[in-house]
Parts: sequence; C-alpha cells; structure tokens
Amino acid sequence: MQRTQFGDMACSIARTLDVMGEPWSPLILRDIWVGMHRFDQIQTDLGISRKVLTERLNHLVGQGILERRPYDARPRFEYHLTPKGLDLMEVLMVMVRWGDRWLAGPAGPPVLYRHHACGNASHVDPRCSECGKPMHPQDVDVLAGPGAATLPKPS
Amino acid sequence: MQRTQFGDMACSIARTLDVMGEPWSPLILRDIWVGMHRFDQIQTDLGISRKVLTERLNHLVGQGILERRPYDARPRFEYHLTPKGLDLMEVLMVMVRWGDRWLAGPAGPPVLYRHHACGNASHVDPRCSECGKPMHPQDVDVLAGPGAATLPKPS
Repeated sequence: MQRTQFGDMACSIARTLDVMGEPWSPLILRDIWVGMHRFDQIQTDLGISRKVLTERLNHLVGQGILERRPYDARPRFEYHLTPKGLDLMEVLMVMVRWGDRWLAGPAGPPVLYRHHACGNASHVDPRCSECGKPMHPQDVDVLAGPGAATLPKPS
Repeated sequence: MQRTQFGDMACSIARTLDVMGEPWSPLILRDIWVGMHRFDQIQTDLGISRKVLTERLNHLVGQGILERRPYDARPRFEYHLTPKGLDLMEVLMVMVRWGDRWLAGPAGPPVLYRHHACGNASHVDPRCSECGKPMHPQDVDVLAGPGAATLPKPS
C-alpha cells in the first residue's frame, strides 16, 4: 500500500494507526476477539471481500497482532490475538465507550462488557496510573516526552 | 466517499470508525487537541495535502467533532474540539498508551500526559466503572447488549 509512512512519525497515535489505521482492521480484530477465528466466519460477518480480508489478516500477522494456528490436517488456520493484539483491544473498549455515549441508537449499546472481577456489565473508567483519580482528556496537559521529534505548541 | 456504511452497523466500534476511521482524522484531532487550531498550522505539521485536510475538517465539523470559530475580520476560522470531540480524545489517549508500550523507540514515549489532579506524568489506567478494579481486555466477557443486531458467538 503506497501511502504516508505513519509508522515513522514520532507519535504513538500515528504508529498505532500504522498498524490499524483503516476501518476494517479494528472490525476484524473485534470479530476475532469475540470468537470468530476462521476466515470464512469473519468474511461472512463483515461482508468484506476475500482479497481485502486476506491482505488485512496478513498485515496483522506481520505486525505481531495476530497469530495463525492450524486447525486441520490440511493447511488451514485459525487467527488468534497475540498478547500485543489482546492489549490493543483496550483501544476498542474505549471506542465502544465513546460510540455508546455519542452514537448509539435508541435501542442502547450493541455490546456490554461483563467484568470478571465483579460480574457487572461495566464500561471502562479511565483513571490516572499515579493517583487513581479520573483521567479524561480535559484532565491532562500534553507534554513532549523523551521520544518527541518536536514540542507541540501549547494552546 | 464511496464505501461500506460502517455507521449503519450495530457496533459502536464501527460507528466510531465511521467518524474517524482513516489515519488522518485522528492525527488532525491530535494536532487540534495540542493547540494547533489553524488550517496552515495543521497542514504544515502533518504534511497533508490541502485538499485532503479540507475534506477531513469538513467531515469532522459535520460529525459534530469540531467547530469553527472566526478569528479574523475576513472569514477565517480556527478549529476547536466540541465536547463530543474532546471526549473522543480518550480513544487517542489509549492509543498512545498502546503505542508507547509496543511501538516506542529506544528514546521513549513521544508525549507525556501531566495529570492536573496530581501533577504527575501519568498514563491511562482502565478501571471498571462498577467496582473500580483494573479492567483490561482479558478481564471481560463481551456480551450482546440491547442494541445488538446479532449475538456474537462465544469463543
């Protein structure tokens, strides 16, 4: 795919988008996360072309997000999230939270997360890693870190 | 733009991607979030074509993510996040966390978040909205919610 090299930008958002920065990849990962591990299941669920699905699966395997596991004597594979891929599902959980809040229809949220620790249908509540208090976008200043290329200008 | 109607899927991830599901939109929003409110600032920072930037800004304004504010006697505008847009930055904060963990170079993270409440450089720690304990992807079951179109098959 010929395009801007997002992965070369000194920005963790750009680098993450380089891995999953088009709409199909997150939806493919969502399907695999909820248990659709086989090509045909994902293809049917998403109504995606076989060509695009093959490309995206190869890309996600190459990025270390997915791994192939044989499930038949013939060379057939299931796709499973690696630890790196499972960790990426955190981004989807926060997308779900936003979509539920701002875009859900009158029927309510399409999915719920049942938290193992308490058994409740819960959503993600972002807290500060240091003090444990709520940490939303309005609660932080964005500063240049050690890996920054340029300092963002303050607003 | 002719494409699959992600916004019509009964999925908050797909609906969110319908708003920001290509790599430029999140990076444009990132720039605006850190204080680059003017067209030329964003265009220079990202090295994006004026045509694509215009399209994406119009799309994000139309989705209620950005608002235009005049800053000159001539009809010139700054772009600012709406409350809906600011809330979406939570997705970027979690992207940053993942990118920092899995894709940052040896120099370290490109940006840091200083939390207003405690003053520390922190990262987002996702907790359960109900019990307050950590809630990562491996800590939940994904269930069909009231707005689901189809029940995901359990893995």
